[in-house]
Amino acid sequence: MKKALLGIGLLGSVGALVALQATRRGGGYYSSNNSTRVVVLGAGFGGLAAARTLARNRDGLDLDVLLVDRANFHLFTPILYQVATGGVEPDNVTHPVRYATQADGFRFQESNVQKISVEDKCVYTDDGPIYYDYLVVALGATNNFFGLASAEENSFTLKTISDGIELRNHIIDAFERAEVEQDPEVRRRLLTFVIVGAGPTGVELAASLRDLASHVLLKEYPGIDPGEVRVVLVEALDRILLALDDQLRQNAMKTLQSKGVEVLLNTPVADVEKGGVRIKDGSFIPSETVVWTAGVKANPLVADLPGEKGRDGRVRVNDFMQLPDHPEIYVIGDCAMYFMPGEQRPLPPNAPVAIAGGKTAAINIIHTLKNEPLEPLKYKYQGELVSLGKNNAVANIMGIKFSGFIGWLVWRAVYLYKLEGFKNKASVLVDWLFGVFDRRETSKLPVTPSKVPSESVAE
Amino acid sequence: MKKALLGIGLLGSVGALVALQATRRGGGYYSSNNSTRVVVLGAGFGGLAAARTLARNRDGLDLDVLLVDRANFHLFTPILYQVATGGVEPDNVTHPVRYATQADGFRFQESNVQKISVEDKCVYTDDGPIYYDYLVVALGATNNFFGLASAEENSFTLKTISDGIELRNHIIDAFERAEVEQDPEVRRRLLTFVIVGAGPTGVELAASLRDLASHVLLKEYPGIDPGEVRVVLVEALDRILLALDDQLRQNAMKTLQSKGVEVLLNTPVADVEKGGVRIKDGSFIPSETVVWTAGVKANPLVADLPGEKGRDGRVRVNDFMQLPDHPEIYVIGDCAMYFMPGEQRPLPPNAPVAIAGGKTAAINIIHTLKNEPLEPLKYKYQGELVSLGKNNAVANIMGIKFSGFIGWLVWRAVYLYKLEGFKNKASVLVDWLFGVFDRRETSKLPVTPSKVPSESVAE
Repeated sequence: MKKALLGIGLLGSVGALVALQATRRGGGYYSSNNSTRVVVLGAGFGGLAAARTLARNRDGLDLDVLLVDRANFHLFTPILYQVATGGVEPDNVTHPVRYATQADGFRFQESNVQKISVEDKCVYTDDGPIYYDYLVVALGATNNFFGLASAEENSFTLKTISDGIELRNHIIDAFERAEVEQDPEVRRRLLTFVIVGAGPTGVELAASLRDLASHVLLKEYPGIDPGEVRVVLVEALDRILLALDDQLRQNAMKTLQSKGVEVLLNTPVADVEKGGVRIKDGSFIPSETVVWTAGVKANPLVADLPGEKGRDGRVRVNDFMQLPDHPEIYVIGDCAMYFMPGEQRPLPPNAPVAIAGGKTAAINIIHTLKNEPLEPLKYKYQGELVSLGKNNAVANIMGIKFSGFIGWLVWRAVYLYKLEGFKNKASVLVDWLFGVFDRRETSKLPVTPSKVPSESVAE
Repeated sequence: MKKALLGIGLLGSVGALVALQATRRGGGYYSSNNSTRVVVLGAGFGGLAAARTLARNRDGLDLDVLLVDRANFHLFTPILYQVATGGVEPDNVTHPVRYATQADGFRFQESNVQKISVEDKCVYTDDGPIYYDYLVVALGATNNFFGLASAEENSFTLKTISDGIELRNHIIDAFERAEVEQDPEVRRRLLTFVIVGAGPTGVELAASLRDLASHVLLKEYPGIDPGEVRVVLVEALDRILLALDDQLRQNAMKTLQSKGVEVLLNTPVADVEKGGVRIKDGSFIPSETVVWTAGVKANPLVADLPGEKGRDGRVRVNDFMQLPDHPEIYVIGDCAMYFMPGEQRPLPPNAPVAIAGGKTAAINIIHTLKNEPLEPLKYKYQGELVSLGKNNAVANIMGIKFSGFIGWLVWRAVYLYKLEGFKNKASVLVDWLFGVFDRRETSKLPVTPSKVPSESVAE
């Protein structure tokens, strides 16, 4: 009954969203040859915020804003782990960039960036050169294997939509193969899922995968014994979710364990082999599915840029998000290393920081063109949100802490609000509604095994 | 306003569906070594109907029903063309077979069939042999290029979920490339979409593609002139939609033309080249996108079976859907050639015929085991349904004819009813709701270029 009420409530929200729909379509926007050319690289959270802010504030200026990405969609990464576990459909977390260009009046080009040339003031792409007067580099991050080649080769990752679909297919496939497999050791290896790294992505994936197994797959594969399925979360440090405070962390830990996720702390990985994970102490966890969520580093293209770089490849920017020696180049989001005044650690590579950086970069380009003084980055820490699977999450919003069912409602409300696109909001709501009834997407969609999403469709 | 009301109405239907949800989960079903083994090949409309009918009527019998398919999902092919044009999401037309096994109590195995051996009473698969006492062959159809190798090589087709996603990506990609292309001839070729064959699939795809271009893409690609986009429907015969009566056919023709689809009748294709279609009279239509919907033939695996075969590869069955010389083998759906008493033409390869055949085969296996007399095929022609895009369709249901907006409502109601899976019904309804607002899925999902869906995920 509680389930039914939840369902009706979620559905009612779809209705409310429909009623609220604003059709904000603008006409196409075209530039003259004399326009100031601003090129934004990357249609993630930061790049999209930069392009929009530029387009919306260009009044009086002859500004041509061009957003470039190798994919034709913005990916809503915070719930990508739900694509991997069948909780939401791939199409519901991808939002075509051109929807935004229509509404906001900037241009888009789907191209793969090969090289940024600071000297030529040019970005070289698969489709030819793109010259700029101002450049915003928002190319995001890639996985950090910390030099562990074996991990790069043998792990699944969770950064692109391909990654999500590929992992989902692989998980279903493991169950499919396990059910017909006679050798108990092979079955066990097929049904052991190891996630390396207990940051938010690792924890959210572990909880969701455990729920998928317990509430959905074990019913569909009656030949598999519940005791054969293991979800193991492996963490090098002595605790999970570093950014959370003790109380929320303890709540999260309790929830993970009550679900049956095995959390191994102080367990640094030495090697990811074909059939499992080797721990530094020499022990071995046999597994056909190792997911690496242990770290990120800046997009390697950032290496072309001059200036001081961090160990994770991020390039140091000034208070206005500019490269110190090239004020026409702004670097934001996961590509930028920025220290708030008085802070010892740079801002973390996450969506709110990227959005704040994108807005600051855009506003400062406008200021420059109007000969106005620049503004330093405006960023205020807003909190943390970590989903713990079915009906459970921990959240810290502006210092107010939530756990359990209320945390879960808060988590969903915030992400639904932040999700790009009205159709996506409604569709994710429907996906979540069915999740309440333990219905998930378990069809194996045919997907390229490539880990680079756009390569498969590019010419 | 009409749009908003339509939206609310469709949304209300989601609510009604939620309220009606029946959770019919059964437990797992396992067979003993002495069970009679019935193997059903193919989880399309016919195979699914056969497996369900067997499982639901096995009371008193020790029957092991195993359904085998190379994909782990049932594909709802009637709206696959909407996947190709962004009208519905791929996940919403794929229904995991194991959902059905749970509810209905049969077993499923995901395996690719290599060969059927009548002598060994065995089906050889990539995962080893599967022995049977009774076999139901429901392997469906593949594309018929009528020996035209160039067409097979250079055409898109529309039979698998890969086909649908691949075509969708390609259409979006053509617009993306056209907008940055300077050469007017190349632009024109990129923006000309040729569909060969004016049967239901060809007509539905042409109408939906024309709507996608006019109502969605031309708004998103302001650099493309509406006059540059062509959708051409090429048909060798002197009319479209052979199976319809004259009045509905004329209505359909008028609708297609008013939308701007160019219909070329009496236009047999000689060759499909890399950059376009060569007509028998020597003329050439330059196009980067040729879709072949001109015909089907039985799955080539049926060639292993003994007996009389038609030119389209279908094997002749008796009134009970058995192979005449092998009564333990039933062949149904697109693999079977069956003449209703007194008819000169075999039943067509479509879903209602496949479902009737599947039920008849299943019932006759039960009858055989109970030493009861067999029943001949029960099939009654129910009519035709052809969608003509936005707010338009022609339908003939039990002799009652519908056109235009009413036809469109009937079309949607019927297919929504027939769609497998409650989550799919609700999600397709949401997709359709947004279609009313001209919102379609235009993200290019990364998909394997292979035309065989399961190969990409199989081991």
